[in-house]
Amino acid sequence: MADKITSRSQDYSQWYIDLVRSAKLADYSDVRGCMVIRPNGYAIWEKMQAALDAMFKDTGHVNAYFPLFIPESYIAREAEHIEGFAPECAVVTHGGGEELAEKLYVRPTSETIIWASYKKWIQSYRDLPILINQWANVVRWEMRTRLFLRTTEFLWQEGHTAHATKEEASEEVLRMISIYKKFAEEYMALPVIMGRKTDSEKFAGADETFCIEAMMQDGKALQAGTSHHLGQNFAKAFDCQFQTSAGELDFVWATSWGVSTRLIGALIMAHSDDRGLVLPPKLASRQVVVIPILRGDKTAVLEQADAIVCTLKKHGIPAFVDSSEQNSPGWKFAEYELQGIPLRIELGPRDIAGKKCVVARRDTLEKTELPLDDTFSMQVSEILNNIQQNLYDRALSFRNEKTIEVNSYEEFKTAVENGFVIAHWDGTDETESRIKEETKATIRVLPEEQEYLDRYKMMEPGICIYSGKPSARKVVFAKAY
Amino acid sequence: MADKITSRSQDYSQWYIDLVRSAKLADYSDVRGCMVIRPNGYAIWEKMQAALDAMFKDTGHVNAYFPLFIPESYIAREAEHIEGFAPECAVVTHGGGEELAEKLYVRPTSETIIWASYKKWIQSYRDLPILINQWANVVRWEMRTRLFLRTTEFLWQEGHTAHATKEEASEEVLRMISIYKKFAEEYMALPVIMGRKTDSEKFAGADETFCIEAMMQDGKALQAGTSHHLGQNFAKAFDCQFQTSAGELDFVWATSWGVSTRLIGALIMAHSDDRGLVLPPKLASRQVVVIPILRGDKTAVLEQADAIVCTLKKHGIPAFVDSSEQNSPGWKFAEYELQGIPLRIELGPRDIAGKKCVVARRDTLEKTELPLDDTFSMQVSEILNNIQQNLYDRALSFRNEKTIEVNSYEEFKTAVENGFVIAHWDGTDETESRIKEETKATIRVLPEEQEYLDRYKMMEPGICIYSGKPSARKVVFAKAY
Repeated sequence: MADKITSRSQDYSQWYIDLVRSAKLADYSDVRGCMVIRPNGYAIWEKMQAALDAMFKDTGHVNAYFPLFIPESYIAREAEHIEGFAPECAVVTHGGGEELAEKLYVRPTSETIIWASYKKWIQSYRDLPILINQWANVVRWEMRTRLFLRTTEFLWQEGHTAHATKEEASEEVLRMISIYKKFAEEYMALPVIMGRKTDSEKFAGADETFCIEAMMQDGKALQAGTSHHLGQNFAKAFDCQFQTSAGELDFVWATSWGVSTRLIGALIMAHSDDRGLVLPPKLASRQVVVIPILRGDKTAVLEQADAIVCTLKKHGIPAFVDSSEQNSPGWKFAEYELQGIPLRIELGPRDIAGKKCVVARRDTLEKTELPLDDTFSMQVSEILNNIQQNLYDRALSFRNEKTIEVNSYEEFKTAVENGFVIAHWDGTDETESRIKEETKATIRVLPEEQEYLDRYKMMEPGICIYSGKPSARKVVFAKAY
Repeated sequence: MADKITSRSQDYSQWYIDLVRSAKLADYSDVRGCMVIRPNGYAIWEKMQAALDAMFKDTGHVNAYFPLFIPESYIAREAEHIEGFAPECAVVTHGGGEELAEKLYVRPTSETIIWASYKKWIQSYRDLPILINQWANVVRWEMRTRLFLRTTEFLWQEGHTAHATKEEASEEVLRMISIYKKFAEEYMALPVIMGRKTDSEKFAGADETFCIEAMMQDGKALQAGTSHHLGQNFAKAFDCQFQTSAGELDFVWATSWGVSTRLIGALIMAHSDDRGLVLPPKLASRQVVVIPILRGDKTAVLEQADAIVCTLKKHGIPAFVDSSEQNSPGWKFAEYELQGIPLRIELGPRDIAGKKCVVARRDTLEKTELPLDDTFSMQVSEILNNIQQNLYDRALSFRNEKTIEVNSYEEFKTAVENGFVIAHWDGTDETESRIKEETKATIRVLPEEQEYLDRYKMMEPGICIYSGKPSARKVVFAKAY
């Protein structure tokens, strides 16, 4: 089994790293800032990809693949974009044994290389919209890295769409951030706040950035997905004009949106505990482990264990049995708790005699008995649904408890150490950056969801907690990953 | 619709490029040697990935992800490996605005970076086997590129396994090349010859390389997959020893195996024709297009077209209708032939009156009538199976016709311009390289399949066609992509 995991209360950061390594989710490599995503971690990414990919395709998107390398001159075309990304790029200067005439940047994001193609593909409104997504690796040179959350190379998907009108692009931006919200909440069991970023926090090259923000167990925020309205910025940078249905020439409107392997980090930090990983069933490639207690009539126990796995699989529940005699049941309990298998079934000779088994939930650690009858698979399925829902409810209660509204900067400074803070802001960059400098807290999001707006009466005017100037609305502050 | 495609007889190379671009499968980018895989092309890759990934998982493999960048010192550890790969690498010299202390190579293949991790993960025979696959992009600097077939960056999967014994590794090597053969034949409808490579053609760092070789419509060979026995070479390079079950120390045995997006090129070159792409149904994300002939009672025709699509989908056949009035039926026929949709259904008012429709096969271009009754979906399904089988049979007949056995070098030189040549070879590197120099033909494979060996009596001894020296067996020569 694994090394001991530091407890969350003792050192949350160390707990996270211990967990990721003990559960064999990821490992540092000797390449600065780059991680190895191990099979246990990659299996989570595969489940995430499958769910997201289906949602993208259901909304008319198709996948494609663009080059890893971006010529320096492309990156330079959009002024804000190069300013934001060039300093954190890895640069290829040699290829095939020779120095290159033009440096190539390893993509930190693909707007520029993609718009170079879109310029060739788009002539008329008939060529629009283009709704393309790409699953890819990207590189952003990072000084301080943390497995999954911040690494020099990471995996992500990036959608890049082209539209005939600003309105269509706006609809797309909202459609995609809504898909991210749905994915976070329904699959990751992670409640998120959807809304806009302030100007200083938006994507380099975007007119507007929408995001979803989640709360981790230490009260910090994690940005779990973004969707950008790029206006006509990239079309102008790449001179991409089209003939409108009215016969005029106009620049194409653009969006881009993405989520990355940092979602795995979010998943871990939101739900897991001191025993290890806690996985929502919908993202668990193995939902149920059966552990035979090998005493007395071993054959009968093993046969029943196999029969259970077979029945569950027939009902679409991915289950497996660990019948190795090398390790004790107790060792196995701990190991699969560490690995986050949502449900454990314990099965011994007495259970077989009583036509029942013991099921232990990973989320609450509760054990109950379940009869081994015709209703068995249905009951297991219900418990799994229940775990999925419970993880969401628990995270939502936690977020609500850890969200505090304040009316003064003194209150703010204390509150922001513990969770999200709702406060009035005067809307200026200056106030925002002063607060960030003094407290390390940032404006995470200007929420757009009615329920959230109502709950905290966010659209009521008031007084900025920092400057004392009039404020049109409240915003959400937090320290963030 | 697309630009005119050059005919195969006129210029096979130009036909290929025309087809790839007209069918919007891929496009050159402005980045030297890098391609854009467009949605139509990427959809084929997704179907390939799904089929292969399921086969890998069925044989106990799991996916993981290792860093894109490989430190120069890693590549250098295996002598043959660095000699083979370093000259064709892209090299990152700067990151985060600073010059790097050690250069990073963009992975041309991942043996070295992966074995650096395996060294950490493997202590005992209990940690073995490791059966990991990775889906990734790789970069090999290419001077002359061709879409899909040879590009600086390409997508692939690379399996990297670690074993306790040489025998287990040998079994794995053969297991995986057999999976590739099965995939090529059952999904791509592409007959392949499975066997070993000569020493000069094997992977840089391998003890033995197995391959599958396919014939294209111009008689040239295309290597469609390789599986390498790496012996203990990489374990030694990375000092990866383990405790055997007998309590001794030994180096770990390794294999690696891969297929890439060049398979899309193989698929095109094997089956397609002067009208465009011909896709085997199993790799077509859209198998059936319904084209309504909008005359007379348009509503009735459109309703019936939708009903057909609905029925087919219910039976698991991906179908769609193109009801746009912007383009004529004739235009649509040509367009979906270009795109390689396996089956076209034409439906007009007279068909509805007669409760029938016309189906046109993409492979043979034959048209037949099909009654719109309860047997409809089953009949469509049968035709699709038939297309799949016909493509395979056609390609196999073609290969057999274009495979010639020769007994002299004069015969050889003529024959090798037209297809595969079976000939005696004295087994020396010298003869092999002389023939290559003089004719550009290489030894593609030393077949291992009994049926193929029997057919050409390959294991009978004879006289080398080049040197006149004794030869222990015949081999397969061809010019290759």
